[in-house]
Amino acid sequence: MELVIAYKNYSSWSLRPWLLMRVAGIEFDQRLLPFAHSDALKEFAAQHDLLPQVPVLLDQLLDQEHVIWDSLAIAEYLAEQFPERALWPADVTLRALARSASAEMHSGFMALRQTFPMNCRAQKQAPTHLITESVQRDLNRLAVLWARFAAAKAKHNAEGAFLCGAFSIVDAMYAPVMWRVRGYGLTVSDDFVAWSAAMYALPEMQEWLAAAQAETWSMPQYDQVGGA
Amino acid sequence: MELVIAYKNYSSWSLRPWLLMRVAGIEFDQRLLPFAHSDALKEFAAQHDLLPQVPVLLDQLLDQEHVIWDSLAIAEYLAEQFPERALWPADVTLRALARSASAEMHSGFMALRQTFPMNCRAQKQAPTHLITESVQRDLNRLAVLWARFAAAKAKHNAEGAFLCGAFSIVDAMYAPVMWRVRGYGLTVSDDFVAWSAAMYALPEMQEWLAAAQAETWSMPQYDQVGGA
Repeated sequence: MELVIAYKNYSSWSLRPWLLMRVAGIEFDQRLLPFAHSDALKEFAAQHDLLPQVPVLLDQLLDQEHVIWDSLAIAEYLAEQFPERALWPADVTLRALARSASAEMHSGFMALRQTFPMNCRAQKQAPTHLITESVQRDLNRLAVLWARFAAAKAKHNAEGAFLCGAFSIVDAMYAPVMWRVRGYGLTVSDDFVAWSAAMYALPEMQEWLAAAQAETWSMPQYDQVGGA
Repeated sequence: MELVIAYKNYSSWSLRPWLLMRVAGIEFDQRLLPFAHSDALKEFAAQHDLLPQVPVLLDQLLDQEHVIWDSLAIAEYLAEQFPERALWPADVTLRALARSASAEMHSGFMALRQTFPMNCRAQKQAPTHLITESVQRDLNRLAVLWARFAAAKAKHNAEGAFLCGAFSIVDAMYAPVMWRVRGYGLTVSDDFVAWSAAMYALPEMQEWLAAAQAETWSMPQYDQVGGA
């Protein structure tokens, strides 16, 4: 399998499936297409009749160009193909919660995502004027979700530092939020801080960070958020 | 099970799981919470720690408030709970394609969705100035996807008038697009026209339309799109 992604430093959609596959121990090759510095993604997309977006997974198991696209579709596909890796929690209630929260991230948290783009190698304190009412609503929503996961974990005796205990797809879906909250010094909740520490400590996350730091491409419009 | 939805005439997110469950023959009660005309959705959401959004599915099988939210999470949940209904295509390639396109709809087609809100009982010809470049890009993208489904169906000998042959989740996810294209006289492709006719002819879709026509709530901001 080959995972097509973009910048490790800036591309939040790239991080999700990459981290999921790495933590789950699913082997894959990666192809980096830095869309603002090269036409390769545009060419790849045209060749496969896709929008010029990442991530895309190529798998020989699939005919019809061998592609599956979109982070959530890729996650569900992998969960099916690798049942022994338990990419979703085994408990039906935890799984329903994980799926709901993953879908909510997939089409939501727009204010947070647009105001604070992922920028793994940046560390700065967000000026308060950037924490608008809509951003604060998104941060509050994270706190509510994290409390819900904590309650569900307790009720189901799920052990582990991640949202459903063991690392699962929902952690991967929210992985970029860890970088946003950490990188811009935002505040969510104690539950979030504990989860964030566990995510940051993952060797796979450190591998991603090291790669992000080593990248020489820069995107000034993102680097300037919150002050250079 | 109980499905919490909003207006049948206007709420595209409500239509998706409703149609899916009806066509699949999954029994459920429905609760209509018309959010612009009552506080009931706000109160329901606060009670369950959710955003004031539909759809939400309540199932006694789930503890933790018994809820699962978001159309795509609900669809995956139902696909798991009712494997005998084959809510996703059985073929792995068709299923990957259906999941990719469903996820693409879940977070995409913004220009089409924002410019032409679903309005089942309206029939008018969109003035050309509303068919902006971004809307046209979305319409072109639908044509590309529909061609891809047609090719995949042919290759896999999948019979039936729907995207993967038999009706599946991806048809439900794009059901509101049928109303938009039909209601505003937009143009996609011949493949789309054939699919659209099959969707419109579904007895369940006609049941939805009749309910939409019988609703007395109106949302002027949507009724005025494209001329009253």
